[in-house]
Amino acid sequence: MTQQSFGVIGLAVMGENLALNVERNGFPISVYNRTPEKTDAFMAQRAQGKNVHAAYSIEDFVKSLERPRKILIMVKAGAPVDAVINQLKPLLDEGDIIIDGGNSLFDDTARRTRELEPEGFRFIGMGVSGGEEGALNGPSLMPGGTKSSYEYLEPILTKIAAQVDDGPCVTYIGPSGAGHYVKMVHNGIEYGDMQLIAEAYDLLKNALGLDHQQLHEIFAEWNTTDELNSYLIEITADIFTYIDPDINQPLVDKILDAAGQKGTGRWTVQSALELGISIPTMTAAVNARIMSSFKKERVAASEILTGPSGKYEGDTKTFINQIRDALYCSKICSYAQGMALLSSASKAYSYDLNLSETARIWKGGCIIRAGFLNKIKSAFKENPELPNLLLAPEFKQTILDRQDAWREVLSQSAKLGIPVPAFSASLDYFDSYRRDRLPQNLTQAQRDYFGAHTYERIDKEGFFHTEWTTLDEETLQTSTPVPLQAQDPAVVLAAPDAPE
Amino acid sequence: MTQQSFGVIGLAVMGENLALNVERNGFPISVYNRTPEKTDAFMAQRAQGKNVHAAYSIEDFVKSLERPRKILIMVKAGAPVDAVINQLKPLLDEGDIIIDGGNSLFDDTARRTRELEPEGFRFIGMGVSGGEEGALNGPSLMPGGTKSSYEYLEPILTKIAAQVDDGPCVTYIGPSGAGHYVKMVHNGIEYGDMQLIAEAYDLLKNALGLDHQQLHEIFAEWNTTDELNSYLIEITADIFTYIDPDINQPLVDKILDAAGQKGTGRWTVQSALELGISIPTMTAAVNARIMSSFKKERVAASEILTGPSGKYEGDTKTFINQIRDALYCSKICSYAQGMALLSSASKAYSYDLNLSETARIWKGGCIIRAGFLNKIKSAFKENPELPNLLLAPEFKQTILDRQDAWREVLSQSAKLGIPVPAFSASLDYFDSYRRDRLPQNLTQAQRDYFGAHTYERIDKEGFFHTEWTTLDEETLQTSTPVPLQAQDPAVVLAAPDAPE
Repeated sequence: MTQQSFGVIGLAVMGENLALNVERNGFPISVYNRTPEKTDAFMAQRAQGKNVHAAYSIEDFVKSLERPRKILIMVKAGAPVDAVINQLKPLLDEGDIIIDGGNSLFDDTARRTRELEPEGFRFIGMGVSGGEEGALNGPSLMPGGTKSSYEYLEPILTKIAAQVDDGPCVTYIGPSGAGHYVKMVHNGIEYGDMQLIAEAYDLLKNALGLDHQQLHEIFAEWNTTDELNSYLIEITADIFTYIDPDINQPLVDKILDAAGQKGTGRWTVQSALELGISIPTMTAAVNARIMSSFKKERVAASEILTGPSGKYEGDTKTFINQIRDALYCSKICSYAQGMALLSSASKAYSYDLNLSETARIWKGGCIIRAGFLNKIKSAFKENPELPNLLLAPEFKQTILDRQDAWREVLSQSAKLGIPVPAFSASLDYFDSYRRDRLPQNLTQAQRDYFGAHTYERIDKEGFFHTEWTTLDEETLQTSTPVPLQAQDPAVVLAAPDAPE
Repeated sequence: MTQQSFGVIGLAVMGENLALNVERNGFPISVYNRTPEKTDAFMAQRAQGKNVHAAYSIEDFVKSLERPRKILIMVKAGAPVDAVINQLKPLLDEGDIIIDGGNSLFDDTARRTRELEPEGFRFIGMGVSGGEEGALNGPSLMPGGTKSSYEYLEPILTKIAAQVDDGPCVTYIGPSGAGHYVKMVHNGIEYGDMQLIAEAYDLLKNALGLDHQQLHEIFAEWNTTDELNSYLIEITADIFTYIDPDINQPLVDKILDAAGQKGTGRWTVQSALELGISIPTMTAAVNARIMSSFKKERVAASEILTGPSGKYEGDTKTFINQIRDALYCSKICSYAQGMALLSSASKAYSYDLNLSETARIWKGGCIIRAGFLNKIKSAFKENPELPNLLLAPEFKQTILDRQDAWREVLSQSAKLGIPVPAFSASLDYFDSYRRDRLPQNLTQAQRDYFGAHTYERIDKEGFFHTEWTTLDEETLQTSTPVPLQAQDPAVVLAAPDAPE
């Protein structure tokens, strides 16, 4: 038997479709699935007449592949990945390449790399975005691992990836867990985009009372603009026109307003907390899904906690345009946060990410694909060391030109009683980032006052501590049974419980 | 030698002060410190003439204690705690009680409990709040572990704790890591309080241009009000009057606006994410400290990203009162989030927390001590099953009466360009929680559209999936190289990469 160029383990829909994508691009494949029935069905139907070798044992699967073997694992993230790797190891030869194409946590990918590479195997953790159809026709691929291993895969991956004006939506991301890290942040950004759209929808529908035809037209029009044109805006426009045949009413109104999540958004927020990076827009998005899930409590509370009418009194057309500007400015802030997080992770984990290329490979195949990403690609191409996307000339000018509209929307929402947590987190991010002086000097004074944490100064170098007060009449008269006196910082910092 | 009632290991300042507090209350103590010099110094100075046995070996320390031994470990959280425990174990007898009084992560406390109790030892993880002075004169104590173990300690802990009108600031919190969990949330709430005060300060100083005497008077006056009277408001008032003698100017203006943190605020946010509870005010507070730490970037950005003047044009007195109301409404939301988190953790980890008692023991000794906590204590006493603090009659009415002022402050801040992330996160929390219908029905429609995640409906039971669109002309004309078609959810949900 002539040997096959590429192997896929796991014939769930993503595995099947990636396998067919590889085969369609001229690479003979082998497939293996734990349950043979799945393999039989695949061979009898979708693989009919294609250059696919069906392996019914992992031994035969491995034997059927040319060396170095290229094996894509498409099983559920977590323990199943380790299980398959352990099955494979005794059968593989030095230099064979294992690719994990699932949604693995970047930590797990880093661990697997540490375990496998010293044993002479090659390991690639690859983020795959685009869902079922993307897998079949062209996903966005985010492969991470040792560069030399990636080079064996490049000819295949560049063919199966989504193709856009400036090339295939794949590039070598970086070592270790870099690929899965970038995929995780992609998902975090996706959460942000979806929440920003939801808030715009809330204002358009409830503050302005627009109907579904109007909502469709607005999003369809926004999708024609250079700045908002994107897959998510496009499907949003579609959604409003979908009429539930059973009730002959727009389906979206009948859908329960309780959003689910699968974890990568939360991982992104957790990673940002670990790295000390501020991503408030994405955090607000994850949080909004959590709030939405408390449907019963909200319904009960809505009877008790009354508020404003929520109806906007001003000019409709003006407000629609202000909402569009608020959406775009907020979106810029969200991507600024995502890119800043990638940049920080790149340093912390030595990923050496190319942010321009990262933006480029998101232009096709994935859920956040958008014309907008071209601008980000260019911004980081012009200045790879750009500290923050907000400082890129084009984005800076866009926000300066639209900030009045953006502020007006936030100002109105607060009065209308319509929550826009991601819009406001974005504006607060912008107003904090552009602020040379924030009020945390008071926070530091408080921390030094009650915990002797010491502080730095703007007028001299060094760490300082002040005896802010001493036990005196006044303090004794306060609500404070235990006035804390200032003290030698060295001593207090050693205390297991210096308060924060 | 007559045996001592209580032992303390670790003579850093917290250990020393808790030891002296115990001894002052009539319990003979033994102390042990790894480095004998520390013990010598303690005996020669602060322990002079007190009933303190200085042990220079862990064996002598253990031998000097009456059984069941009560041993408080006051060393740095993490590995040092495990190290001391491992030193002790071979010397202890069944039923002896080890107390970890450091700022340990609740997970570690749970693990240590699991390891120690089957071996016949008793383990208490105790949160201690109040810093150095509190440890000496009366801290707030949050002991967690097996109830029967706590009962041996109760006579001592009730004496050494801060005393307030309704008793000592200590109570049995719950099993396992409950004590350290509650301490962690206490610190998260402390972050929220400090950030809310910082935002009020920012508006008063920068939007209204008030000087330090005026700021002092405002916070001093707020501290006399039933609702805002608290240790943190009190020290804030003090801080504004402190003049740096070297420059004869208010010190607070010279302090670098970059806030540090020690981790418990971040832990609180991470735990809330794990439990699926929304704590946006505390999250905004942690985030604001992160933003503040990017001082250099902010200074550079401030030259490029211009914005509004930031000067408030309206009536000063009116705005001051509105800011006070915004601060109080936001504080209520922050505590509502903290109590909701405790309630969720109580169920998830079977802590069986008494939220009324938790609020009560925070009334004295700790950084967040405030008259306000009396209202929370009463709210949960009246209704231990209260789903959210916002629904308690008094708090509900307070917010309804003040929401216009609160909304006005948010509305103004957005226009002034002054970031108030914790104020706005609090208002968004309120407006989301009181909303029977949020826009996440659109989010669910999008997730079903691109990932076939399925959705629930408000008009019928069950999970549904819709073929929202099919590949047609229109979709081909969009920016979307790979239009995703709807598909059988069963299949897609099995996919390792169903997008979120």
